[in-house]
Amino acid sequence: MQEMNIRPIQKKDLTDVLDLIKELAIYEKEPDAVEIDTQDLENGAFGSPPDFFCLVAEVNGEIQGMALFYHRFSTWKGKSLHLEDLIVTQQYRQQGIGKALFEAVLKEAYQQKLKRVEWVVLDWNQSAIEFYKKYQATIFEDWRTVQIDEKNLKKFAHASV
Amino acid sequence: MQEMNIRPIQKKDLTDVLDLIKELAIYEKEPDAVEIDTQDLENGAFGSPPDFFCLVAEVNGEIQGMALFYHRFSTWKGKSLHLEDLIVTQQYRQQGIGKALFEAVLKEAYQQKLKRVEWVVLDWNQSAIEFYKKYQATIFEDWRTVQIDEKNLKKFAHASV
Repeated sequence: MQEMNIRPIQKKDLTDVLDLIKELAIYEKEPDAVEIDTQDLENGAFGSPPDFFCLVAEVNGEIQGMALFYHRFSTWKGKSLHLEDLIVTQQYRQQGIGKALFEAVLKEAYQQKLKRVEWVVLDWNQSAIEFYKKYQATIFEDWRTVQIDEKNLKKFAHASV
Repeated sequence: MQEMNIRPIQKKDLTDVLDLIKELAIYEKEPDAVEIDTQDLENGAFGSPPDFFCLVAEVNGEIQGMALFYHRFSTWKGKSLHLEDLIVTQQYRQQGIGKALFEAVLKEAYQQKLKRVEWVVLDWNQSAIEFYKKYQATIFEDWRTVQIDEKNLKKFAHASV
């Protein structure tokens, strides 16, 4: 592989980062799931305070991957880092870009003295799980993510007024 | 039940909120898991920007419950709310305090125009799951939480330097 560079997102990267997000949604057979646009990304990444942080991986000057993360707060451990997304373009997978981004995020968490790093994985994604276990990650088998989406949040709010 | 009042946390509540966090840890048979102190809570709740928001439930002027939450960012939907903890003292359970706190959090998310509300539940906690389903919450069966704790984060950082 040619020269790779990992650096924080800049405003000129917003379209490339949104394209990566959409590429992943198409791959996951949910092409219409992405409701955000570059303005949302700009507000989130460059707001004061920012809603998230983003590292991009450049290969030969073109963005081929990104990691998006933000802080959370554990009432047991304190301030932590949540890795929301780590995406590499299909044509550049299996070349170490994902690993480099993942390790850059871990280093960021360490330098910020955060108490843990957290993310989610699909339970059938055995290759990802094996990768994470190399870092002594713990997979929590009995926790389930629960969500109320915008539609049902509105339904609740209108019914309860 | 006597008069109940739900309001944002104030500095005078920090000890009571930490006691609630510890009560839950003891109940979950992890009495030593709570590593934060009131200073961490103060920094988190009243920092600029704050690391989290907290609502407390007062009954007859004493704190009997709390909900702690913060913002996250979904690359598909945008800004969302994560409910980290919802705790009611053992002696005041089954009296509607938890429901009132939960609904106050949903209303907060709606008023802030957030795109979804998320939290985790233990897969064997059927009564909680039934409660959440009344709000049309979705339980994601195939996602698993993954964490690298502080000890292993340090181990990685030292090995990779």
